Amino acid sequence: MAVIDINADLGEGFGIWRLGDDEALLEVVTSANVACGFHAGDPLTMRRVCADAVARGVTIGAQVSYRDLAGFGRRAMDVAPAELTAEVLYQIAALDGVARTEGGRVAYVKPHGALYNRVVGDAGQARAVADAVRAYDPALPLLTLPGSAVYEAAEDLTVVAECFADRAYTPEGRLVSRREPGAVVHDTDAVVERAVRMATDGTVVAVDGSVVRLDARSVCVHGDTPGAVELARAVRSALEAAGVTPRPFA
Amino acid sequence: MAVIDINADLGEGFGIWRLGDDEALLEVVTSANVACGFHAGDPLTMRRVCADAVARGVTIGAQVSYRDLAGFGRRAMDVAPAELTAEVLYQIAALDGVARTEGGRVAYVKPHGALYNRVVGDAGQARAVADAVRAYDPALPLLTLPGSAVYEAAEDLTVVAECFADRAYTPEGRLVSRREPGAVVHDTDAVVERAVRMATDGTVVAVDGSVVRLDARSVCVHGDTPGAVELARAVRSALEAAGVTPRPFA
Amino acid sequence: MAVIDINADLGEGFGIWRLGDDEALLEVVTSANVACGFHAGDPLTMRRVCADAVARGVTIGAQVSYRDLAGFGRRAMDVAPAELTAEVLYQIAALDGVARTEGGRVAYVKPHGALYNRVVGDAGQARAVADAVRAYDPALPLLTLPGSAVYEAAEDLTVVAECFADRAYTPEGRLVSRREPGAVVHDTDAVVERAVRMATDGTVVAVDGSVVRLDARSVCVHGDTPGAVELARAVRSALEAAGVTPRPFA
Amino acid sequence: MAVIDINADLGEGFGIWRLGDDEALLEVVTSANVACGFHAGDPLTMRRVCADAVARGVTIGAQVSYRDLAGFGRRAMDVAPAELTAEVLYQIAALDGVARTEGGRVAYVKPHGALYNRVVGDAGQARAVADAVRAYDPALPLLTLPGSAVYEAAEDLTVVAECFADRAYTPEGRLVSRREPGAVVHDTDAVVERAVRMATDGTVVAVDGSVVRLDARSVCVHGDTPGAVELARAVRSALEAAGVTPRPFA
Repeated sequence: MAVIDINADLGEGFGIWRLGDDEALLEVVTSANVACGFHAGDPLTMRRVCADAVARGVTIGAQVSYRDLAGFGRRAMDVAPAELTAEVLYQIAALDGVARTEGGRVAYVKPHGALYNRVVGDAGQARAVADAVRAYDPALPLLTLPGSAVYEAAEDLTVVAECFADRAYTPEGRLVSRREPGAVVHDTDAVVERAVRMATDGTVVAVDGSVVRLDARSVCVHGDTPGAVELARAVRSALEAAGVTPRPFA
Repeated sequence: MAVIDINADLGEGFGIWRLGDDEALLEVVTSANVACGFHAGDPLTMRRVCADAVARGVTIGAQVSYRDLAGFGRRAMDVAPAELTAEVLYQIAALDGVARTEGGRVAYVKPHGALYNRVVGDAGQARAVADAVRAYDPALPLLTLPGSAVYEAAEDLTVVAECFADRAYTPEGRLVSRREPGAVVHDTDAVVERAVRMATDGTVVAVDGSVVRLDARSVCVHGDTPGAVELARAVRSALEAAGVTPRPFA
Repeated sequence: MAVIDINADLGEGFGIWRLGDDEALLEVVTSANVACGFHAGDPLTMRRVCADAVARGVTIGAQVSYRDLAGFGRRAMDVAPAELTAEVLYQIAALDGVARTEGGRVAYVKPHGALYNRVVGDAGQARAVADAVRAYDPALPLLTLPGSAVYEAAEDLTVVAECFADRAYTPEGRLVSRREPGAVVHDTDAVVERAVRMATDGTVVAVDGSVVRLDARSVCVHGDTPGAVELARAVRSALEAAGVTPRPFA
Repeated sequence: MAVIDINADLGEGFGIWRLGDDEALLEVVTSANVACGFHAGDPLTMRRVCADAVARGVTIGAQVSYRDLAGFGRRAMDVAPAELTAEVLYQIAALDGVARTEGGRVAYVKPHGALYNRVVGDAGQARAVADAVRAYDPALPLLTLPGSAVYEAAEDLTVVAECFADRAYTPEGRLVSRREPGAVVHDTDAVVERAVRMATDGTVVAVDGSVVRLDARSVCVHGDTPGAVELARAVRSALEAAGVTPRPFA
């Protein structure tokens, strides 16, 4: 019987500001990537999201980031490895402590934004993140892309691949850059069909028509753009209709 | 045989900026109040200070603060109780996680600056801090002044009194406000003598000459002003010469 | 012929986060209180809002605040007067420079949130704000409440009173605290009627039924709650229908 | 008669934290690069440094930076050009407003840290900085390295070259990277001799012994390392002894 995890970013407000619809997403996902205060997220929001996730049986992950509230963690920053390790460690620990007071815990780690992109190809930054996970709890899985530099940097850790049903893939199994035309799939039916194929067959059809093996254990959905929650709901419904059980990977 | 804890604030730099002499203080104190990133302290500094404290057998405490880097946590802020609880929880958890990777752990909590002063007299803010400690680990002691509102707010927790050998006291056992003349005792011999009396007799001579009972289990020393480290060393030496053993309270 | 200014807070997003509908409000107001980066507002947002305001003939004011992004400037902070003066000066200057590159300029100053409330009754904080305005440009008017401490602190400056059509007033002409029942008037017809009376007669009916003279030259509307923009539009329409011309006070 | 400007970074504390000896440096330099709050510098410090600079006849420049207090602006960040332009504009305007209240004004702009290095070779970032200067005041000179991309990006503006007496140069007139051995010249006599040659002859001896023309109008000295102020004083004394008059370039 096929199973797959559905993950999304949550708790990405800050103070008075809100982003995305945390409550609606918590009805869809099995894993919540909760912001830890460096690109978004404040302690009160973190506590509320953790409580809501625990109440709905959603697994909590630490969405760690470069320290950049003004840029939402989307700007590449040349952070020295030892400093990055300490910053990631600080974020995991803070969220884990908050989650535990609500009956949950941090069950995995997913880098955010520019850090997510950076660790895919930069061995030094990947090692810095892996060092933090290893120091805090070597049993925590890291969520990344297939083929990412994280696999080698964290070969003694658990590394889990995720996929994106609404993103185009190269024949090598990489995401097509958002700067290229066609990088994002907007048609709901196409997105849903790709999600089901990813979950049941472990593959995606690349931009050149070739079939690429991904073997991802989690599919990422979004909640911060118009129509995103509806699309996430459609993906989940289609997975269930195809006999795929949404289940946390961690 | 008399024992007393000696505590000081450490890790109060931020990024490139340094404050105080952490290494020298770690040779003097038995408990280190480590800044957690809200008034001072960055993850890398926290990690370094925790490693050094563990190496020297110094107990680690979480020095929690209002979120105010620009004001070094010294400005009273009207933070809503639920938000303050979440912020204190976040800080304790972050430092605890960092400390554990270095073989230590957070063993107590001491509010900093404006929050320290606020919880002495404000029951609501005291309860908010106590709520965070209770949620994270009800076995963690809270360090405060004798007679503080923390005692009532945290009556189910361990509350420990500290004293200041270089501060003048009122006949009621309160600190004389820094705005008053004579609030700070500058003479080394006088400070040393007061510290020994606090540790051996549990009392201090107030500004009106009366003897006030403090029964403090920890004496606070400072490291961020000229001559402060020398004074801290003199206090420790005099305590030992008087047969008082410096020992962590937690 | 009656005239009145209509002001609202604008540019209160930060980075990725948005708050309120700046574009819709710019169609309603004659004066825009633009956030300067201390409670909200980033340089790019400031530039965009200034450009839009200039394009629509809306006057720009500096909405200055305590330095508190996490609390949106709504938490009272004990900032030393000299520091507050420097911080207010910094904010005015930054926005003025940005506005001038778009063909506008800062034409008045309005404190935000906790600072707004604080200067009404705290002579020291009022003087600190007045000192900043005097230092930067003594011709800049300050927008505050009738009876505020700002009048005395800035008696050599221009101080302008504003009123709130959706807030209840005490017989002394003060706003009823938001903690009291009935502090906010929610009925659109009532708000509109009060706005017209404020503009044409200079008075408001207080909670005890007495008529209180306000003589306010500006009415403040909001844009960050559901239905707020519609209410603001209704106020403007009713003012125009009553023969009142919306016109910047500065 | 030979003249040269001597510039240094000032006002690089933040809140309670201090860095370097502003007062000592103000006795040496003719131009002060004042931090504007993005990598260091708070409004009160900015005001104090501007007042001191004006009192000593030292010219004030805006030391603009990426927004990165935690990293002191030393970490390269991928900031979008329009955002960088707005951020630089904000910083120049804020400092200029503060300086004017003390009888001074911003007379030039010098990027700091990672932004300084970035604009030397990155045409896009250089244009973004030039756009801010052009928008605020096209008469403001930009201080950069000989051969920098700023020359082309700001060809309608005034671009001024500076040199470093304590840094080794390649035969192409570039600074030897700090990662290379010998990048920094530590010997006081050597530094002083190089400074005089730069001022009187416009040249430097490169690492391969060749003579490179720099034609710099300003020499940069530092104040934040041990012995730095003494070295800066020695450079100034030697320049004067060689008949070179220290004079602001702006």
